[in-house]
Amino acid sequence: MKRALYIGRFQPYHNGHQSVLFDIARETNEIVIGIGSAQLSHEPDNPFTAGERVLMITHALRELPCPFYVIPIEDIKRNSLWVAHIRSMAPPFSDVFSGNPLVVRLFEEAGIPVFSPAMYERETHSGTEIRSRMIAGKPWKDLVPPDVYQVIRELDGERRVQALALDDGAGCGR
Amino acid sequence: MKRALYIGRFQPYHNGHQSVLFDIARETNEIVIGIGSAQLSHEPDNPFTAGERVLMITHALRELPCPFYVIPIEDIKRNSLWVAHIRSMAPPFSDVFSGNPLVVRLFEEAGIPVFSPAMYERETHSGTEIRSRMIAGKPWKDLVPPDVYQVIRELDGERRVQALALDDGAGCGR
Amino acid sequence: MKRALYIGRFQPYHNGHQSVLFDIARETNEIVIGIGSAQLSHEPDNPFTAGERVLMITHALRELPCPFYVIPIEDIKRNSLWVAHIRSMAPPFSDVFSGNPLVVRLFEEAGIPVFSPAMYERETHSGTEIRSRMIAGKPWKDLVPPDVYQVIRELDGERRVQALALDDGAGCGR
Amino acid sequence: MKRALYIGRFQPYHNGHQSVLFDIARETNEIVIGIGSAQLSHEPDNPFTAGERVLMITHALRELPCPFYVIPIEDIKRNSLWVAHIRSMAPPFSDVFSGNPLVVRLFEEAGIPVFSPAMYERETHSGTEIRSRMIAGKPWKDLVPPDVYQVIRELDGERRVQALALDDGAGCGR
Amino acid sequence: MKRALYIGRFQPYHNGHQSVLFDIARETNEIVIGIGSAQLSHEPDNPFTAGERVLMITHALRELPCPFYVIPIEDIKRNSLWVAHIRSMAPPFSDVFSGNPLVVRLFEEAGIPVFSPAMYERETHSGTEIRSRMIAGKPWKDLVPPDVYQVIRELDGERRVQALALDDGAGCGR
Amino acid sequence: MKRALYIGRFQPYHNGHQSVLFDIARETNEIVIGIGSAQLSHEPDNPFTAGERVLMITHALRELPCPFYVIPIEDIKRNSLWVAHIRSMAPPFSDVFSGNPLVVRLFEEAGIPVFSPAMYERETHSGTEIRSRMIAGKPWKDLVPPDVYQVIRELDGERRVQALALDDGAGCGR
Repeated sequence: MKRALYIGRFQPYHNGHQSVLFDIARETNEIVIGIGSAQLSHEPDNPFTAGERVLMITHALRELPCPFYVIPIEDIKRNSLWVAHIRSMAPPFSDVFSGNPLVVRLFEEAGIPVFSPAMYERETHSGTEIRSRMIAGKPWKDLVPPDVYQVIRELDGERRVQALALDDGAGCGR
Repeated sequence: MKRALYIGRFQPYHNGHQSVLFDIARETNEIVIGIGSAQLSHEPDNPFTAGERVLMITHALRELPCPFYVIPIEDIKRNSLWVAHIRSMAPPFSDVFSGNPLVVRLFEEAGIPVFSPAMYERETHSGTEIRSRMIAGKPWKDLVPPDVYQVIRELDGERRVQALALDDGAGCGR
Repeated sequence: MKRALYIGRFQPYHNGHQSVLFDIARETNEIVIGIGSAQLSHEPDNPFTAGERVLMITHALRELPCPFYVIPIEDIKRNSLWVAHIRSMAPPFSDVFSGNPLVVRLFEEAGIPVFSPAMYERETHSGTEIRSRMIAGKPWKDLVPPDVYQVIRELDGERRVQALALDDGAGCGR
Repeated sequence: MKRALYIGRFQPYHNGHQSVLFDIARETNEIVIGIGSAQLSHEPDNPFTAGERVLMITHALRELPCPFYVIPIEDIKRNSLWVAHIRSMAPPFSDVFSGNPLVVRLFEEAGIPVFSPAMYERETHSGTEIRSRMIAGKPWKDLVPPDVYQVIRELDGERRVQALALDDGAGCGR
Repeated sequence: MKRALYIGRFQPYHNGHQSVLFDIARETNEIVIGIGSAQLSHEPDNPFTAGERVLMITHALRELPCPFYVIPIEDIKRNSLWVAHIRSMAPPFSDVFSGNPLVVRLFEEAGIPVFSPAMYERETHSGTEIRSRMIAGKPWKDLVPPDVYQVIRELDGERRVQALALDDGAGCGR
Repeated sequence: MKRALYIGRFQPYHNGHQSVLFDIARETNEIVIGIGSAQLSHEPDNPFTAGERVLMITHALRELPCPFYVIPIEDIKRNSLWVAHIRSMAPPFSDVFSGNPLVVRLFEEAGIPVFSPAMYERETHSGTEIRSRMIAGKPWKDLVPPDVYQVIRELDGERRVQALALDDGAGCGR
């Protein structure tokens, strides 16, 4: 049985991720979706909690034609331990799908095969673009699955992203 | 919609957990299952990794009559932050099921209702009992769901538990 | 000017601490009171948060005849760094008062003079004794300053200590 | 009784902070002053230790017309836990005063009212401006309370800030 | 080329370690000596700093007939990451020598061969025995290499071990 | 006896370091070489693990005319604890050699004498320059000792540095 790993921060989960996961589902039996930087939230680049991202992904993938696991993964901040960390948090997997050069390198040094999925309209379908549109009050609804739009609305997520954008990083000791 | 939280270490997941979760499923719409001490493994009391526990639980709950989320949760070691930590890692939940006095206390101080589920044959259906039987070479198969037995066999888990039991905690600097 | 350091966990602050601090106040110009294990709370041996302990101490010492500072100090868990950690968190101090052999040793190795204060009726005036009495429902009011009794009452602290005493340390992954 | 929270890094404490705190003192019974990033020191943007900052603030506020608490608070680096962290380290508070958008957002999501204090001549009365003047050898004495000036002089703080400004961040593995 | 790994806490380094290392030196080209729990010191069971232990080992092994590396290794507290942690801190090694069941298990699961060295008079040649003798004022000089005895004398180590033995673990917040 | 401390990140170790260490060897009896940021690797600015750096340094210094210790040191991220951290990990030292302003300042505040070694052709002999050349495919062999060149070749280090340079820091949750 083939079980594939796919990792992202999903801030937020969007149609680009959705497209890649449906592609992977055709080549594998099961998918493990790792939510990276799970401990971060309420930052301009990481507005949503791990739990909120679990909700987005699980709802959006109801129609995925293979079983999947959604696993929040906290950062370990030591690249030499990263592969072992992922392996301890995820069910055993045989393949990795990633276009990130460091992820590719780390899994290759560990002897695990890595495949680079074709990206789907990468310019507009990126978390950065979606967060920018939220801040600017521009439309972003069409860039995410309808279930994700619904989750973000219920969280009042757009207003959170806008509030975080005001932060100048100064004046308080967080 | 009601979404309940249920937390355990699941070392391993057994029929007691299974029974409680099917009970909870009758009273709620969705269940969040938090895997505590996710960062621990290969210890006499915590032999299995978070990923292995995710696998056990997900396979065992294929017939659960409501949607569920399985979330590994690393320890935070500060009780005053624990509820906030759980809330950030899990999808939003409205109720907690737990028989643990500290868990009850912490959620109650946070104003979240806690219910104590009826335990199922607690003496034999406990992780401690199952690990003891594994070490002693006594039968334990009937204490866990068949899918969990299968997962542990494939992991060669019984032999791992036996090897860890030899550890005297001395001589090496882990 | 002489500024003395006095460190304790203050779980809770009691008449023994009060007596020692009034003694120290006669020999020094200012006192720094370090609250150790500041990050711990809601544990059988560490029921109160740092903030709650700050409140107890500050209220109890209103009549202290010298200025004082109350400083929560999180554990560093590396004895070789502990003195440097205390020095970074506290205003500069010239003397240390402690009866704890490790504290004495660490400050002595760092070349800082340490004095052992006379303890005040140590058997009954200890945090352990007071927490035991709370659990058993026995009287403890006379072992703490009236202001501390008031703070603990407002926190519903006795009931918290009793609830934490039920914890068997099992079943949840904290 | 109203107890207000005010948080800053205070690198160093200056007349802007002093002005705000005297304003808050008119609207509340007690003030909790949280020293953020307490664990940082000897950095270009964070030259002073928590203990040194406790000293500055306590000396400067001798005339404050209400009781106050000065609490060093180490960073937690997880925004979702930050409010719980502050609450565990500080005596219970009912209101927060902050002009920082993230602080405002986090306390609002936790249901705690936040007020934005009027800033006092923000351009010149900022830690950044004062540290720049120290580095350039320009006058900064009038931007801080006389007691703070005295503390920094005794610490030889100006020379420390100048020395830290030379650091290019390279060549050593801190 | 064969490079072997040998790990211990070395509190203190004694003739048992010395004997094993001279044995290993006959079977390998180079030896990596990992000092476990490097961050611990000034504890009853861990009295010496990593630096002090580096000194003992390096002086005692001047006559070792093969090159060796002495590497302090801080604890990682996650068994699933432990092998990766060791591999990142140590020069590449091909074999492991250890009698510790957990170490054996972890390296075996990682596919690295482990050999159990014959122990040398284990009852008397153990750190526990030597520390007990130091506390009791009994002779221990013959249990350690002469160079180690010299290092411990210069550190005034016997008196440190005695002082730490007085610690009752209570009364201060370390 | 004089024992000097010299600290660097050594990413990679090069002729500049080699030159400085041979200079220091003429003025001291023994040298402690601390490898800073030991926990980092596989980053564009920190490509090599601590163990790989230990190997480079030890091989390159075979001809050094005095005994030396090579000590990996993990970051502590609290400048106020940094000197105590170094002292706990390294054998006792009497002098420090460093040109880094922060290192100079921290040891001076701790009362330890610091000497600034003459740098050897600093523009070309820097880790930054060597990593840039590796990425650009330009020659760098002459900037490092022959033994270091050999180690990096065996590690396939040039290709690792090139792969890490592709990382855009986005898209994965490390």
